[in-house]
Amino acid sequence: MKFLKTISVEEFKNILESVPRLKFEDEKVNLGESFNRILSRDVNSKINVPHFRKSRMDGYAVIAEDTFGAEEDNIIELEPIETIQAGDIPKKKLTKAQCSYVATGAAVPENSNGVVMVEFTDQKNSKISISKAVTPGTHIIEVGHDVKKGDLIVKKNTIIDLATIGILASCGIKELTVYRRPIVSLISTGNELVNHDIKQLEIGKIYDINSVVLKKAIENTGVQVDFLGVVKDDYADLKNIIDKALNESDIVILSGGTSKGEGDLGPRVLEDFSDIEIYVHGVKIKPGKPIIFVKLKKKLIFILPGYPTSALSCFYVFIDNFLRKMSGFPLREKFSKKLEIGERIYSTVGRHEFKAVKIKEENGGKKIFPIKTGSEAISTMFYADGYIEIDELESIIAKGDKRRVYFF
Amino acid sequence: MKFLKTISVEEFKNILESVPRLKFEDEKVNLGESFNRILSRDVNSKINVPHFRKSRMDGYAVIAEDTFGAEEDNIIELEPIETIQAGDIPKKKLTKAQCSYVATGAAVPENSNGVVMVEFTDQKNSKISISKAVTPGTHIIEVGHDVKKGDLIVKKNTIIDLATIGILASCGIKELTVYRRPIVSLISTGNELVNHDIKQLEIGKIYDINSVVLKKAIENTGVQVDFLGVVKDDYADLKNIIDKALNESDIVILSGGTSKGEGDLGPRVLEDFSDIEIYVHGVKIKPGKPIIFVKLKKKLIFILPGYPTSALSCFYVFIDNFLRKMSGFPLREKFSKKLEIGERIYSTVGRHEFKAVKIKEENGGKKIFPIKTGSEAISTMFYADGYIEIDELESIIAKGDKRRVYFF
Repeated sequence: MKFLKTISVEEFKNILESVPRLKFEDEKVNLGESFNRILSRDVNSKINVPHFRKSRMDGYAVIAEDTFGAEEDNIIELEPIETIQAGDIPKKKLTKAQCSYVATGAAVPENSNGVVMVEFTDQKNSKISISKAVTPGTHIIEVGHDVKKGDLIVKKNTIIDLATIGILASCGIKELTVYRRPIVSLISTGNELVNHDIKQLEIGKIYDINSVVLKKAIENTGVQVDFLGVVKDDYADLKNIIDKALNESDIVILSGGTSKGEGDLGPRVLEDFSDIEIYVHGVKIKPGKPIIFVKLKKKLIFILPGYPTSALSCFYVFIDNFLRKMSGFPLREKFSKKLEIGERIYSTVGRHEFKAVKIKEENGGKKIFPIKTGSEAISTMFYADGYIEIDELESIIAKGDKRRVYFF
Repeated sequence: MKFLKTISVEEFKNILESVPRLKFEDEKVNLGESFNRILSRDVNSKINVPHFRKSRMDGYAVIAEDTFGAEEDNIIELEPIETIQAGDIPKKKLTKAQCSYVATGAAVPENSNGVVMVEFTDQKNSKISISKAVTPGTHIIEVGHDVKKGDLIVKKNTIIDLATIGILASCGIKELTVYRRPIVSLISTGNELVNHDIKQLEIGKIYDINSVVLKKAIENTGVQVDFLGVVKDDYADLKNIIDKALNESDIVILSGGTSKGEGDLGPRVLEDFSDIEIYVHGVKIKPGKPIIFVKLKKKLIFILPGYPTSALSCFYVFIDNFLRKMSGFPLREKFSKKLEIGERIYSTVGRHEFKAVKIKEENGGKKIFPIKTGSEAISTMFYADGYIEIDELESIIAKGDKRRVYFF
C-alpha cells in the first residue's frame, strides 16, 4: 500500500500551499467575452486616447489670445465660422478673431487653443460676443491626455474586470491573450447513485447531487468543469474513466469511493498507476476524513467524500482557494464572527470537526446552534448559516462559550 | 416641455424606491441551469428523503433485541444471511438471531431495527460475534428523516443557491418554475461613437465603450441584456430604436444624448410619446447630472450620460440595486471605510459629487487622493479604488479631513 497515514488539517493546508501553480498556455478571446479571465501578456495601447484634440465643454473654440481682456463690461466679438458637433470632422481652421462652435467631446478646429463656455458667450448680428477671457489650454483635452500610444495599460496576470474592459475598449482593443482556463473533470462514484433522468427511485438508490452542486461550486472558481458522469464501484469502470479524465483535463475531482466497507476502490485504482505521487490520504477532519490528493502524469487528482454535505464542506475549506490560485481568480475571503453558543454542541475526539451551525436570535442576541442532522443529510447544508471549527481534542462545547462562525 | 426640473440625490433615491416592482411571468428551467434564478412557486418534496431505511455506518443490521446483553465478555453470535452494499436491494428479511452486513448508506433489511458498527463485531466459523448491544433505532436513518414527502422544501421568491440546488436535487426535482428574467435593452447614442469593428478611428470619433462595460454591469444584476447598437443623434433613428426596445424589453437604458449643445435629443424624442410619465429629468450630481427616468407604455426608460465613467458611476449609485430589486437578485452591499484625505480635493458647488478617488499608503496610513482626470477619461474609472460623496455646498475638502470611501 503506497498510501500514507492520516494527516492533520494544518499539514493538509501546508501541502496544498506548496503545490506549484500549474502552467497553462495562452488563448485568444474577444474583449466582450473576457470578463473574469486573466491576461497572460502586458497590453500596450496602440492609439492615443483621445486621438484628436477635443472640447471638454459646450462652447466656442477660440485662439485664446483673441479673448484676452474680455470681461462682462468689455465684450470682444469673434466671427463664427463653423459648428462642430461630437463626431464631426472640423473643416476650417481658425484665423485671428474667428471662432467655431464646439459641443462637448467634439474635435476642436486647427489653431484653436481654448474653449469659452457657452455661458460666457452671446450671439449678436452674426457675431459671437465673448464676456470672459480664457488662458491657452482651457477646456481642451489634448491628444493622449487619457492614454498615450505605446503606454502599458494593463499588466500581465491582471484579472479582467469592468474597468479593465473599459480602458481596453477605449484603446480599440478587440481581442486579448489570456491564460487558458484549467479544465477540471468531475466524476461521481457509487453504486447507489442514479442521475436525475430516472423518475422512480429503487430501494437503495439515491439521486446524484454532486454532479449539480459540486459542479457549480467548482465552476465558481474560474475553471472549466466537465462532468464525466456517475460511475459504479467497479475497478475497470473507475480505471477507464480516470484514464479518460487524465487525458482531457488538468485536475480530476471524484466524489465517493474512498471508504466503502468492503474495500477502498478509489485508492486501489490510483495506486496501480505507476507514476503516482501521493500527497494526502486521509485528513483528521469531520466530515470528510477520507479525502485523497495525488499527482499523476503531471495532473492532480482529488477524491472527496461521497456525501454531498461532506464533499461540499471539504471543497470549501480546502479546494476552493486552491483552484482559484490555479485559475488566477481572486481568493474567496471568509467572513467570520465570534458569537455565543446557544446550546451544547458535541464533537468526536480525534477529528478536527467542521460543524454546520445555524444562527438564531435569542434574548436579543445572535447565538450559535448545532444542526441536528448529520453529513448524510442534504438539509444540513441547506439550513446551515456557516460552520465552526472544533479542535481534535474537544468533545463538548458548553452553552455560553464564544466561538468563531465562518459564514457560507 | 413636459420635463421636470433638476432634483436632488435624495429625491431621486426616493423615486426609485417608490417605483413598484414589475411583474414577470413564470418560466421553466432545468435544475442545472437554475443557479441564481428566483423561484416563483413554493416547492414541495414529491418523495421522502431517504425513501428507504438505511444504515449510517458500516456494520451489521440486526434485530436490536437479539443484541441485548452483548458485551466484550458476553459475546452474542448471529447468523449472517446477506451482504448489502450501498445501492443494493436487500433480498432477505431478518428472523431471530440473524444479521446482514450493511455498508454506509446501504438499505437495511426488513425487520432490522439497529446496526452494530463493524468495530464491535467479528467473524468466526461463519457466525458474526457481537460485542456491544444496540438499542432500537441505533445507526438507522428512517424514511423521511431528512425530508418528508409533501414537505415545503423551498419557498417562493427564494434565490437559488448551491444549497438550494442540493436539496432540490436530492428530492428528485429536475425542473423548476422561476420568474422570467427582466429584459433590458441597451442603446448607445452619439454621432461620435463607432463600434469595435472599425480599425482606424477618424478625427472626432471614439470607440463605444458602454456596449461592453455598461452591458456587463447590467448583466451582473441578474437581468438579460440585449444591446441594440449605436444610434446616431437623429430624431427618427432614435425614435425607431426606442419603439423597438419598448416592444422587446421591460426596461430600456440609453447612454448619451441627454445634453447635446444644440438640442436635447433624448428628452425631445421621449416627450413626443403620448402616454409618457416622467419621473426624473436631471439630478444635481456630478458626474451624471442629465440623467432621465420615465415610464412609457408600462416600461421603464433610463437615459444615462454618455461618458463611460459617468454612465457607470450613475449606474452603480442608482440603478444597480434598482435592477436587482426587479430581478430578485441580492442587493449589492457597499463596502465603505472612513479614511483621511491625503491631498486637497476640489468640487463644484451646487452638485452632489461622486468623486473618484485612489487609496495610497502615506506615512504608514491609508489615505484618500483625488484622481486628476475627469469623467471624460476612461482611466479615471480604471485607476479609481472607490468614490467619496461631496455635498452640494462643499467646494474644497481639506487635507487631513476624514471621509467615507465607498469601494468599487
